[in-house]
Amino acid sequence: MSLNIAVMISGSGSNLQSIIDAIEKNSLKSEIKIVISNTKNAYGLVRAEKHGIKSRYLSKNNYNSPREYEEELLEILNNKKIDLIVLAGYLGIVPGEIIKHYKNKIINIHPSLIPSFCGKGFYGLTVHEKVLEYGVKVTGATTHFVDEGVDTGPIIMQEPFKIEDEITAEELQKEVLKIEHKILVETLGLIENKKLEINGRRVLIRR
Amino acid sequence: MSLNIAVMISGSGSNLQSIIDAIEKNSLKSEIKIVISNTKNAYGLVRAEKHGIKSRYLSKNNYNSPREYEEELLEILNNKKIDLIVLAGYLGIVPGEIIKHYKNKIINIHPSLIPSFCGKGFYGLTVHEKVLEYGVKVTGATTHFVDEGVDTGPIIMQEPFKIEDEITAEELQKEVLKIEHKILVETLGLIENKKLEINGRRVLIRR
Repeated sequence: MSLNIAVMISGSGSNLQSIIDAIEKNSLKSEIKIVISNTKNAYGLVRAEKHGIKSRYLSKNNYNSPREYEEELLEILNNKKIDLIVLAGYLGIVPGEIIKHYKNKIINIHPSLIPSFCGKGFYGLTVHEKVLEYGVKVTGATTHFVDEGVDTGPIIMQEPFKIEDEITAEELQKEVLKIEHKILVETLGLIENKKLEINGRRVLIRR
Repeated sequence: MSLNIAVMISGSGSNLQSIIDAIEKNSLKSEIKIVISNTKNAYGLVRAEKHGIKSRYLSKNNYNSPREYEEELLEILNNKKIDLIVLAGYLGIVPGEIIKHYKNKIINIHPSLIPSFCGKGFYGLTVHEKVLEYGVKVTGATTHFVDEGVDTGPIIMQEPFKIEDEITAEELQKEVLKIEHKILVETLGLIENKKLEINGRRVLIRR
């Protein structure tokens, strides 16, 4: 099944790039209908343009009320007939109405093995710095459905990464990003092929 | 270096058995000088007896004060010239004085990837039930040094286990136990060979 995807970003958009690449080499059947960034100069917006994908800078700061922002976002998603929203390094909060409206149709990628090192304050390089400070020997990445909490929704895929002693946070971020790109594309493939079954908090993968 | 080890248990002692086996086939050079159980009918006490290892049932409930219990335990450890205390499925709390006295000389094995699914209330089968309820796709086991908190000390080794959809908590427990046995013996080998360097919360392994 081909899905109309909206990708929401805040930064460089390397996870967006992995989706674009997978679509261009026909590993995925879906189409990115729009890229939405809540930061104006996100490099992900340039990536979208390079590949002929529509994009929008949309920040709640430019609206008089959260309600107005929410309505604008909802209208964009409706106009584009979006089936699935992918949060790919998106650091904003998705309005509650949109989470309700797109129940089990929003996914997020997080650079740790949830429930470790997730929730408020855990994003970007900080996650990996905290992982190293804590001294864990295994970290990884997680894709999950988005619910009202921060990083609390049902987990779709996780893949571990073993930490060697001498790695820096920057090196760790690079390694985990490779895993993110892989499981994000795999997760989209599973959704395209209707292989996922949500059972409470557990997401079963039909093989 | 051969270490004089005390193993503290509460139950069947399968992790104790993995240490006994490793010593008997000369994978480890150390000697278990005593097995201490805080439950009277722990099968681990039978295992000790079968292999000619001294054992003691010792419960704080049988002492008039925490202080008396602590002194008795300390005396046993001193008499046996214990270099290292291994908590192997030990569900009691190690008295603070003993943690101070044996700083970085007490290790614990925990059936999850700390900091996920650890701390108060997370032991035995419960850990795996909670792992499955939460719906994580990767769990594992952890060895760590013991500090004043519950499962909070510096992590020595971790190894991941990927969860397949249909596994039960009992099956998961069995799989993770295999990992526990492996990394517990490996951790003891690293300590015997002085390969560990504690740097704040990070434990570096010299290869």
